[in-house]
Amino acid sequence: MEAKRVILALFLLFLLSKSSAFPGRKSRVHKPCKRLVFYFHDIIYNGENSKNATAAIVGAPAWGNKTILANQNHFGDLVVFDDPITLDNDLHSAPIGRAQGIYVYDKKEIFTAWLGFSFVFNSTEHKGSINFAGADPLMNKTRDVSVIGGTGDFFMARGIATLMTDAFEGEVYFRLRVDIQLYECW
Amino acid sequence: MEAKRVILALFLLFLLSKSSAFPGRKSRVHKPCKRLVFYFHDIIYNGENSKNATAAIVGAPAWGNKTILANQNHFGDLVVFDDPITLDNDLHSAPIGRAQGIYVYDKKEIFTAWLGFSFVFNSTEHKGSINFAGADPLMNKTRDVSVIGGTGDFFMARGIATLMTDAFEGEVYFRLRVDIQLYECW
Amino acid sequence: MEAKRVILALFLLFLLSKSSAFPGRKSRVHKPCKRLVFYFHDIIYNGENSKNATAAIVGAPAWGNKTILANQNHFGDLVVFDDPITLDNDLHSAPIGRAQGIYVYDKKEIFTAWLGFSFVFNSTEHKGSINFAGADPLMNKTRDVSVIGGTGDFFMARGIATLMTDAFEGEVYFRLRVDIQLYECW
Repeated sequence: MEAKRVILALFLLFLLSKSSAFPGRKSRVHKPCKRLVFYFHDIIYNGENSKNATAAIVGAPAWGNKTILANQNHFGDLVVFDDPITLDNDLHSAPIGRAQGIYVYDKKEIFTAWLGFSFVFNSTEHKGSINFAGADPLMNKTRDVSVIGGTGDFFMARGIATLMTDAFEGEVYFRLRVDIQLYECW
Repeated sequence: MEAKRVILALFLLFLLSKSSAFPGRKSRVHKPCKRLVFYFHDIIYNGENSKNATAAIVGAPAWGNKTILANQNHFGDLVVFDDPITLDNDLHSAPIGRAQGIYVYDKKEIFTAWLGFSFVFNSTEHKGSINFAGADPLMNKTRDVSVIGGTGDFFMARGIATLMTDAFEGEVYFRLRVDIQLYECW
Repeated sequence: MEAKRVILALFLLFLLSKSSAFPGRKSRVHKPCKRLVFYFHDIIYNGENSKNATAAIVGAPAWGNKTILANQNHFGDLVVFDDPITLDNDLHSAPIGRAQGIYVYDKKEIFTAWLGFSFVFNSTEHKGSINFAGADPLMNKTRDVSVIGGTGDFFMARGIATLMTDAFEGEVYFRLRVDIQLYECW
């Protein structure tokens, strides 16, 4: 009897060990080990806003140019950006980091983009970087890209980031809300 | 005796636990937790095929332009694409998703490319995205790129994808076979 | 008494199992499972060095061109590269692989870049590729990017790479020291 009870305890521990070794992998609902919400602000260069612009068209299709986003839903425009990151949705709030990298508009029939970029932090609160890549079908209310790595405070991070267009003004300004959910934290 | 048998059982469970905690990490042969094979089709814009083109040159070296792939094995040409994904090798099959992103030809002496792109699915069968990055030495029969993340049905996926050039026609059309092997499935 | 001792042994094993299942995740100091140091060499095309150049500007902002790095700290310049990798800091050492991909200069006020690239090896020593992405604030003495995946000998690798500018000559040549620390090895 004693031994049976021990074996039972052992099985329970074993199961516990399994389920906590892979948090959430068996369950439908995964719980992030870290969650962060930020906003970033993109002001694209249009030939006249040199001082304020945080982004510029650097690649364009044969039918495009570098100061006006191209026809056909901007298909082929490649933009380099260095956008301020803020904690709230106010462009004029103190930036707590920079969103840096590239995006391309990549569909003729509708607005859609592909992103490769990093959040770079160097403040008392956060030091390090979070790296992202993925498709951004930007007409959807929300869309997910991958967190593919991190450094510093975000060493070895993996997860997803849910993007939401929080505002856009003509073809010059847009603001994205980024809800970062990390599922691997070291 | 009883206790010894219990301890033996315990050790066996312990070993079992270890080996299943890291499936395949100790063995030479890793087994994917998910495997998917698709084809995608790239028709590059050449100045005359505006209707059919799924890709366009948007960056080119000093010696290149936007409607003809550059000399020196297209070194420096950067292409944005939105290519249909099909289950078989027929361009005219019903697409089940889109391959979206960028590639660059990056060697003067031979055809070689670097890819950053996503598979985007929104059908009853698959919803979500798979994100890829890596070198594509395209004169090799097969070559591997990394699956660096995923969303939706492919949440947190990691693995590799084996690319094979299934067909090419001049400098306008090519078709890739993509054999996706995921080794981390959530 | 017997059962108690068994349960104790069981707990110890359980704890052991947990700590070795996540090597280093609990401790402050993570130890790489693999470490590699390389150098790579970038010679940018300037209109006159066609033979030696290993990289070319293929995207530039409205105020830039393809043979001179742009004003404003090269903001917006997008470069495609195929750089030799060497074991020491000598450009003329036998290359043991190629660093291939893209970088963009992405800040107006200071030199900063974003990188997406691969190390491609095909020698007796190393076969396969390592894929990288991340921000490169290149005025810092060292900076970290993510290892986002690998193939062949580096199958499923993850980690970080510490970059250091080992030399630069005007706007034509630079050499990076890359200290690769893998924390996931399969």
